[in-house]
Amino acid sequence: MEFSAQQIADFLHGEIIGDRDVKVNNLSKIDDSIPGTLSFLSNPKYSHFIYDCKAAIILVNNDFVPEKPISATLIKVENAYQSLASLLQLVDSFKKNKSGIEPLSYVSASAEIGAEPYIGAFSYIGDNVKTGKSVKIYPQSYIGDNVKIGDDVTIYAGAKIYANCVIGDRCVIHSGAVIGADGFGFAPTEDGSYNKIPQIGNVVLESDVEIGANTTVDRATMGSTIIHKGVKLDNLIQIAHNVEVGSNTVIAAQTGIAGSTKIGPNCMFGGQVGIPGHLHIEKGVKISAQAGITGNVKENSILLGSPAMPHMQFSKSYVYFKKLPELANTINNLQKEIEQLRNQIKAD
Amino acid sequence: MEFSAQQIADFLHGEIIGDRDVKVNNLSKIDDSIPGTLSFLSNPKYSHFIYDCKAAIILVNNDFVPEKPISATLIKVENAYQSLASLLQLVDSFKKNKSGIEPLSYVSASAEIGAEPYIGAFSYIGDNVKTGKSVKIYPQSYIGDNVKIGDDVTIYAGAKIYANCVIGDRCVIHSGAVIGADGFGFAPTEDGSYNKIPQIGNVVLESDVEIGANTTVDRATMGSTIIHKGVKLDNLIQIAHNVEVGSNTVIAAQTGIAGSTKIGPNCMFGGQVGIPGHLHIEKGVKISAQAGITGNVKENSILLGSPAMPHMQFSKSYVYFKKLPELANTINNLQKEIEQLRNQIKAD
Amino acid sequence: MEFSAQQIADFLHGEIIGDRDVKVNNLSKIDDSIPGTLSFLSNPKYSHFIYDCKAAIILVNNDFVPEKPISATLIKVENAYQSLASLLQLVDSFKKNKSGIEPLSYVSASAEIGAEPYIGAFSYIGDNVKTGKSVKIYPQSYIGDNVKIGDDVTIYAGAKIYANCVIGDRCVIHSGAVIGADGFGFAPTEDGSYNKIPQIGNVVLESDVEIGANTTVDRATMGSTIIHKGVKLDNLIQIAHNVEVGSNTVIAAQTGIAGSTKIGPNCMFGGQVGIPGHLHIEKGVKISAQAGITGNVKENSILLGSPAMPHMQFSKSYVYFKKLPELANTINNLQKEIEQLRNQIKAD
Repeated sequence: MEFSAQQIADFLHGEIIGDRDVKVNNLSKIDDSIPGTLSFLSNPKYSHFIYDCKAAIILVNNDFVPEKPISATLIKVENAYQSLASLLQLVDSFKKNKSGIEPLSYVSASAEIGAEPYIGAFSYIGDNVKTGKSVKIYPQSYIGDNVKIGDDVTIYAGAKIYANCVIGDRCVIHSGAVIGADGFGFAPTEDGSYNKIPQIGNVVLESDVEIGANTTVDRATMGSTIIHKGVKLDNLIQIAHNVEVGSNTVIAAQTGIAGSTKIGPNCMFGGQVGIPGHLHIEKGVKISAQAGITGNVKENSILLGSPAMPHMQFSKSYVYFKKLPELANTINNLQKEIEQLRNQIKAD
Repeated sequence: MEFSAQQIADFLHGEIIGDRDVKVNNLSKIDDSIPGTLSFLSNPKYSHFIYDCKAAIILVNNDFVPEKPISATLIKVENAYQSLASLLQLVDSFKKNKSGIEPLSYVSASAEIGAEPYIGAFSYIGDNVKTGKSVKIYPQSYIGDNVKIGDDVTIYAGAKIYANCVIGDRCVIHSGAVIGADGFGFAPTEDGSYNKIPQIGNVVLESDVEIGANTTVDRATMGSTIIHKGVKLDNLIQIAHNVEVGSNTVIAAQTGIAGSTKIGPNCMFGGQVGIPGHLHIEKGVKISAQAGITGNVKENSILLGSPAMPHMQFSKSYVYFKKLPELANTINNLQKEIEQLRNQIKAD
Repeated sequence: MEFSAQQIADFLHGEIIGDRDVKVNNLSKIDDSIPGTLSFLSNPKYSHFIYDCKAAIILVNNDFVPEKPISATLIKVENAYQSLASLLQLVDSFKKNKSGIEPLSYVSASAEIGAEPYIGAFSYIGDNVKTGKSVKIYPQSYIGDNVKIGDDVTIYAGAKIYANCVIGDRCVIHSGAVIGADGFGFAPTEDGSYNKIPQIGNVVLESDVEIGANTTVDRATMGSTIIHKGVKLDNLIQIAHNVEVGSNTVIAAQTGIAGSTKIGPNCMFGGQVGIPGHLHIEKGVKISAQAGITGNVKENSILLGSPAMPHMQFSKSYVYFKKLPELANTINNLQKEIEQLRNQIKAD
């Protein structure tokens, strides 16, 4: 993809200063610019970079006044940052122009595929699957029997959705994500082995959920594991059976949430956090990376550490953890001093 | 799937009290009941929920005597909990009624496929693969050359089994699991780069092993990485080359076990546990979530913390970790008091 | 595969002592030997195992002189360990003799496939993909549009490479790895929901990179996430958008590196390490398993703990962490003693 300064200025309703025919095929940062790309100046702190910028085109705010000559073509716009965002979305939409049902895919005769689909080769659409309009299913994806998929959903190559799950409008599911595998439920027997507890529930993703690459969301034993509206899950996250994640909660990579725990809305969890089963985490809770939760958590708490504690408390304790050898030394000295005092008193 | 009260009572040898024609298509919990479903009352603590229960059918124990009218149809059975388990298994078996070899799969001419197979579309069965009877291989799975698979094995969509691995009877392998990728072995060279050490061993899963979604079990450098009978691995677990996991050991999600470590039977590890290489963890060991093991572990130990310590010891130390700022303050005060005492003695 | 003693001796330029027709089909360790296999004696500490060794053939150094009769055929070589490595590589190369384009694969008409390819069934090669010579793409892999792949690359079954990524010469990518999924970038809105920030960059793997099973490397928001020459990543690792990993850095399983962090060359990270975003980790840094980094790290540092500290400092503090209950007890006793002293002084 290549765009001329003229095309970009037309799209952004901007004003060209320089060569309107120069073309770019990518973007670069103004402090790390690359020839043949488009760059942008939004934050005035970065203004001094513009005079050495190697980019072919630079977006600037209308009020930008150069102090020295600039070799690149400028495009002046109302708000350079917002214009950049518009360009990013434009480029992004070109990436996603796939359409049609590729011949080597398998679509069950009983599946109902909505309007304007993309179904990539080697994708498998099971019995009684229903998809909404403008659903894109990339190659090698698996949509099990009876799965329901809303409108404008994107499922990237090789994502797996087990039977009976429900995917809401505008969800994005990345490669390798597994939605609806069995929950980890086994009943111990007398001889020390385990019997599998059948996992007959499903997973429900509400609308606007994003599931990262290789993240796993297990189906419920009974009922549903529910990921509410607007939740964003990063890569390699584990969500166990019967968990519920509240709307607009955002979770970073490699975090794990054990069975039946309920997470409130608008929480933010760092990476590699661990949350045991059967807990309630209320709304607005922030948990730092690698923290290990041990009990229910109240609204808007900020937690850190494994086992986790309130953020400030952990930080204070950790300051003294670092000084423990000194503290121990001080205690040792105190013992000696007391001994001396005792001897002195005796001597007196 | 829909079942009438009559069908369910016949299957469970139960007694119907109410409408024998009412139908259900799912299950729900008595404290979170859903119309049109079957619920159950097993624990007497939950008895009060039955009077407002919205379920169409409720399983109860023979000795249950209602104190108020109940709108649902009751089915009385010997043991409501065990009857529920039977029903779950029945429903589960309906889910798994796939059979036949779907046309778009690839099965090598030299593969020997056992009786009553299911091989889904886009699955790849390599040269000299042997499968037992009633093996179900869902779509997009990869079975490398020379892999041997026992009877009644289920391999879900997109699981990958590298060449030469061995899968025992009744194993269940979930989507995205990777069995037999190369162990992580590299020899440093003088210029700081690394040479790959060929990994020519394999992975052996004994019978009744369950492997969770996106879990990875690496092949041995030489010999076999062995997962013994009855082991249950949750999702996103890493088992490195030449590891051995003892029978009936159960490991929760996102735990990692480094190369050549031997785990005894009947252990239980929480999620996100880390175990370094070349260790021996004896039988019956319990390790809490997020613990980091640092050495061999004796039979029936219970460990916690990173670095891990005996459970009670860690908990006690952690109590004082929380109080470290106070302890430091106390020490500070002691120093002052001793100084005062010293001055007092001098003054005397 | 079976080899006779004669074939092996010819390949290794070794001298046979015993039956030159005996055949082996696998390798085993001298302290855990298996009949019908080839074993080796390199470390003199293991010499006593050779007299009971069940292997059919044993590689020994030229200077090995048996003290008792040995039942196996010996092959004497200059350096038994190096000869073993040569044999491993030989066996390994037989495993990887796949070639040709299997009929059930999809290769876009606009893709340019280099000489001597292997493209397995159900693999998807998108528009304008370019591959070098001797590239092996196992079944069910996904190579998105415009991806460039160098020479002698191996991509195992089911790996996924999103559009526009670049894979250098001699890279190895294991099953389930996802290269180029969207970075985790969302802008909060006033109502608490999030808008996706388009991720239009790519991932660049330089030459000789190995990516473990189910590891995820996210594409950059703009520009490239870069994995430099010779980096080795184990399984289930998360590399976020715009990260850069320096050459010959080696990272163990389940480690996560957040957005825009730059890692220097020749680092070694243990498993389950967490590194937050926007940090600089300089060259030669070693980080122990499960450590949680909190700031920039200087050249050749050795870190441990979560939050991480210099290795020695953490270890010292942890010694006292274990003794905290005793320390607290000592402090308590000191308080009492001071009280006694005070009373004594008063009494005086």
